[in-house]
Amino acid sequence: MKQAAIVGGTGYGAIELIRLLHSHSEIELVNIYSHSQHETAISSVYPHLKNIENTTLDSLDIAALTKNVDIVFFATPAGIAKEFIPKIGNGIQCIDLSGDLRLSSRDAYKNWYKAEAADQSLLDVAVYGLSEINRQKIKEATILSNPGCFPTAALLGLIPALQNEYIHTEGIVIDGKTGISGAGKTPSARTHFPETNDNITAYKIGQHQHIPEIDQYLSEHCSTTVHATLTTHLVPMTRGIICTMYGKVNGYYTTEKILSDYQHFYEGNQFVRVLDAGEFPTTKGVYGSNFCDIGLHVDSRTNQLIIVSAIDNLMKGAAGQAIQNVNIMNGWNENNGLKHIPIYP
Amino acid sequence: MKQAAIVGGTGYGAIELIRLLHSHSEIELVNIYSHSQHETAISSVYPHLKNIENTTLDSLDIAALTKNVDIVFFATPAGIAKEFIPKIGNGIQCIDLSGDLRLSSRDAYKNWYKAEAADQSLLDVAVYGLSEINRQKIKEATILSNPGCFPTAALLGLIPALQNEYIHTEGIVIDGKTGISGAGKTPSARTHFPETNDNITAYKIGQHQHIPEIDQYLSEHCSTTVHATLTTHLVPMTRGIICTMYGKVNGYYTTEKILSDYQHFYEGNQFVRVLDAGEFPTTKGVYGSNFCDIGLHVDSRTNQLIIVSAIDNLMKGAAGQAIQNVNIMNGWNENNGLKHIPIYP
Amino acid sequence: MKQAAIVGGTGYGAIELIRLLHSHSEIELVNIYSHSQHETAISSVYPHLKNIENTTLDSLDIAALTKNVDIVFFATPAGIAKEFIPKIGNGIQCIDLSGDLRLSSRDAYKNWYKAEAADQSLLDVAVYGLSEINRQKIKEATILSNPGCFPTAALLGLIPALQNEYIHTEGIVIDGKTGISGAGKTPSARTHFPETNDNITAYKIGQHQHIPEIDQYLSEHCSTTVHATLTTHLVPMTRGIICTMYGKVNGYYTTEKILSDYQHFYEGNQFVRVLDAGEFPTTKGVYGSNFCDIGLHVDSRTNQLIIVSAIDNLMKGAAGQAIQNVNIMNGWNENNGLKHIPIYP
Amino acid sequence: MKQAAIVGGTGYGAIELIRLLHSHSEIELVNIYSHSQHETAISSVYPHLKNIENTTLDSLDIAALTKNVDIVFFATPAGIAKEFIPKIGNGIQCIDLSGDLRLSSRDAYKNWYKAEAADQSLLDVAVYGLSEINRQKIKEATILSNPGCFPTAALLGLIPALQNEYIHTEGIVIDGKTGISGAGKTPSARTHFPETNDNITAYKIGQHQHIPEIDQYLSEHCSTTVHATLTTHLVPMTRGIICTMYGKVNGYYTTEKILSDYQHFYEGNQFVRVLDAGEFPTTKGVYGSNFCDIGLHVDSRTNQLIIVSAIDNLMKGAAGQAIQNVNIMNGWNENNGLKHIPIYP
Repeated sequence: MKQAAIVGGTGYGAIELIRLLHSHSEIELVNIYSHSQHETAISSVYPHLKNIENTTLDSLDIAALTKNVDIVFFATPAGIAKEFIPKIGNGIQCIDLSGDLRLSSRDAYKNWYKAEAADQSLLDVAVYGLSEINRQKIKEATILSNPGCFPTAALLGLIPALQNEYIHTEGIVIDGKTGISGAGKTPSARTHFPETNDNITAYKIGQHQHIPEIDQYLSEHCSTTVHATLTTHLVPMTRGIICTMYGKVNGYYTTEKILSDYQHFYEGNQFVRVLDAGEFPTTKGVYGSNFCDIGLHVDSRTNQLIIVSAIDNLMKGAAGQAIQNVNIMNGWNENNGLKHIPIYP
Repeated sequence: MKQAAIVGGTGYGAIELIRLLHSHSEIELVNIYSHSQHETAISSVYPHLKNIENTTLDSLDIAALTKNVDIVFFATPAGIAKEFIPKIGNGIQCIDLSGDLRLSSRDAYKNWYKAEAADQSLLDVAVYGLSEINRQKIKEATILSNPGCFPTAALLGLIPALQNEYIHTEGIVIDGKTGISGAGKTPSARTHFPETNDNITAYKIGQHQHIPEIDQYLSEHCSTTVHATLTTHLVPMTRGIICTMYGKVNGYYTTEKILSDYQHFYEGNQFVRVLDAGEFPTTKGVYGSNFCDIGLHVDSRTNQLIIVSAIDNLMKGAAGQAIQNVNIMNGWNENNGLKHIPIYP
Repeated sequence: MKQAAIVGGTGYGAIELIRLLHSHSEIELVNIYSHSQHETAISSVYPHLKNIENTTLDSLDIAALTKNVDIVFFATPAGIAKEFIPKIGNGIQCIDLSGDLRLSSRDAYKNWYKAEAADQSLLDVAVYGLSEINRQKIKEATILSNPGCFPTAALLGLIPALQNEYIHTEGIVIDGKTGISGAGKTPSARTHFPETNDNITAYKIGQHQHIPEIDQYLSEHCSTTVHATLTTHLVPMTRGIICTMYGKVNGYYTTEKILSDYQHFYEGNQFVRVLDAGEFPTTKGVYGSNFCDIGLHVDSRTNQLIIVSAIDNLMKGAAGQAIQNVNIMNGWNENNGLKHIPIYP
Repeated sequence: MKQAAIVGGTGYGAIELIRLLHSHSEIELVNIYSHSQHETAISSVYPHLKNIENTTLDSLDIAALTKNVDIVFFATPAGIAKEFIPKIGNGIQCIDLSGDLRLSSRDAYKNWYKAEAADQSLLDVAVYGLSEINRQKIKEATILSNPGCFPTAALLGLIPALQNEYIHTEGIVIDGKTGISGAGKTPSARTHFPETNDNITAYKIGQHQHIPEIDQYLSEHCSTTVHATLTTHLVPMTRGIICTMYGKVNGYYTTEKILSDYQHFYEGNQFVRVLDAGEFPTTKGVYGSNFCDIGLHVDSRTNQLIIVSAIDNLMKGAAGQAIQNVNIMNGWNENNGLKHIPIYP
């Protein structure tokens, strides 16, 4: 049994980690750190945890942390993990759910996050935790950078097509739609129910910090540098992301041929489900689970490959994939703590 | 390991049973019967089950059923279970999620369900599965009648107050609000999204078939016959029931005194959470879980006790309580298959 | 053509007033005052007004106001109108949409609003603007106190029953459900989409400041002082209020008899629609309009009269009734600016 | 005052026409025809119309119709208008809200609608009612084909860019998202609230009948035949369409330059609002109104022009544009019956 702590314990990422760790057979959650609400019982902040998780939130104490735990999850806003991880060391596994360690270019981080990047030495050892794609490196990782929600849906949908050169690397479009929990727990005008309900909003057009993350990892799977267009939309639902992706088909392929190669590509990956021809994923089909569902169609009229992928943004797009990565890092069964069937309806 | 079957396999009750049985350590689900969709794979009807539950739906075959299984769940519309349960016998445990066996009076059934009641002999042996209240009888049951969703929320909220004579038996009001999944899986004008979204509807005023069920079991916990007023409302959400209940206080009691007796009443019952003074339950606080949360307040201005209870209508209000009852019937841990933490947010 | 100003110009009440005044034939909106956003164009705060209403928000200037306008709407939080109205005078019509002038008892105001009440002299001249009930007094008013949203729905539903002594004055229960716009424009944890969506919350149980308002005006229509129980719930929709009300029937009356008297009571009142037996109102049926729809049922099993009333909280529950009152005060057609048909679906 | 009739009187298109005609100063609605519900009062089918519109639905009687009315709106499913319009004649203005007359190619109709097309002679005289683009022809029309909802949003967003050759004609992508009212009034599994709420679904990928309509009218504004990719998604809201559109920029243009040309292009068109740089439209910003809001951004990283347009699918996407077209056909003020400000929030 390993001991774990969560830093940033009152955000939605943390609360989902707590839910998942509750059914994990190899991890005991011993500390939850919160800057804003320390000395409060977690069940006061989140009454749904009453009688389930009664831990009191602590102020972060790196010295104590280093002595007590084997695994630390950072479910913190950008800028925190990059400061604290270097102080931890000691072979302790650090999983960063923020964007601090995702970009290999420190300049890119500065441009998109409008802040100083992590030290190069830290970036050098951090492993990007797109579980299905990067499994071998994740096995060896101590510092893990957990992917963003849109990048997870986009990369899992696009990488097989790019790697097999089914589509051109130029002109790729990713139209992302997310539930409002993706905006986090802090209330704002943009997430105020009367403004958000019965409404769709396009936001951060051309400015989303997930853009360079997607480009970087798409490029790793091609012979060239990819610049994809990502737009993001808020839709009136709590959880879920759909990315609808478009790429110009590179030759003549049928839907069936590409689907069959996707199925082969993801064989043995229990959390990616490639659908049959004519079927497309829905966010409800993955609600509360760690699945990424993928459907696709070759539009022969326009010679475009249309790929649709769906995840639960708090699961495969955040906490679920974090647990999956910890399982890989420790040689545990990949679905430990992740056996949740989608909640339907 | 016991073998189980579900009859009525494509409704929302069944789909929730499948989700729960998946994590049950003592039950193996071997058959799912569906009249309307037999010979279809369950994952074609419910794509969220792809790669999880691949059973093909069968037509109901009582002879085969009787040979193969130890437990049968009826997740059928009213009128089915009462016909088939008598043909099963053989010591097989039958759990009826419909209303067929809930009313002891055959006349009442006829009045409220507009159909012939079950045979008296069947009603005589059926045990009402309000788990926390009826646990001793449930332990001995072979035929179990699982409570309705509104009755579960209302009875758990009111019985301690009535039993302790905190409120008068006359003039009790239950204002029920339910998510739309309570109306079942069949599309109708009333559940059509554009009609239901951004809308509240009062329905079946004075005519809901849960009215006699509530009266019957409230009366069992008083010295007199209770006639409570139940109104039901559809609110634009998928899951969840809130019952707000009102009873005239019988003397002088504080909120704290009554709460403390409720806490004592439900001590040792892990699925009922009595909240502290000033706190009231929400449906999100129990989403996807088997909890019933209860808060209350003595309004000294009006001398009314206001009780608010919340459940997930498909869990504690249907499939969750059914599993809890099977656990009690078989002497298993009461939370086997029910360890789900509420999904939040 | 009269000139009007709105004070508190960026809340939801103001924005609805702007919508309505746009089609009013006798009022020209000349000033919108906002403390928080002065010198901003209203269409920057509310982009839906682009090319429609291009006024720039001003800081409140009482001297200028007094010179320029004939009518002032206060769409301000509690505490503002009671300070400024006394400084206006000059025969200018003041319509207060806040609660400042609703309670005749200064002690009650202090208890429920936790602040000093308006001066007695101001309270003495303010007329309560429940249009259908108080029309004669409203005709003579200069200072008008516009009713609260729950009180509007509750009083219109209950007054005919109380006045005709169909129900007992004791034990009246009002179960109120409101869309989230009722909580105003300021984001908060309680109105954050991920917390509010797919959720019902009971709030301010026993503490809602609309309680004394309802009691006061119910009592005016009886021979005794009424203490009704009001509970309020937030439901996941933008607009709309349903009040489900319960009172013990005082003798033997049929649904039809009471309905027919309600229809007679509201004859000639175009904005109150009394439904036929077996029909109940929905919030969608009044969406965006000034209607109050009322349905009712005598539950002979329990001897309770169940009354259901529905309004749009921002229309008949706020801005719509304010315009209706201004029309009455000025002898204009009562539906001037209010000809909106409910938006459906 | 002209007399008008609506054929297909119980669908969502009709109900919105009724709302709009109510405030039209030159049209009197004299007949509403419904095949399914004749001899029923419209307010029984739609209780929100109680005391507003009391017409009784009739069976369609072409002879009577021809004698009584000047204008006929067909708010019927595909296949009806093409049969009845030829029987009307007599100079009566016919407005078809269905897809029957939108495609000039009878083969294309057969392919996409899976049914026989209208007679060539009828197609020859029908004018496509994209009001802002086709105003001159609409002025002369007697038979008007009202555009589809997605085509309206897509064409208004794309035509200025294509006409000015800002983007390549190849590789255009239109990612459409619609509220559920777009699926019509008939309940189905896809529109059942528990399936639709908290869910996004991609549907009719590569098969939507609006695809050839968009291609045909885009092509009219270029020197070449355009084949655009359209995907459509159902999002959990009642009304509203957002189209997010992507085209490869043809040279070097700034966001500001293109925006300024769009503003110029739509000058004098009160229902199209071109937003400023950095602003993007929302469906709530046009809710219940006839506006089409357009925002755009040149993504210089990828050399894509991203255009976002928003409409209310039942207004500018159906009934609103139909009224606008009738106004143009008759030389009335274009906003007669269409002065509705967006309902906000």
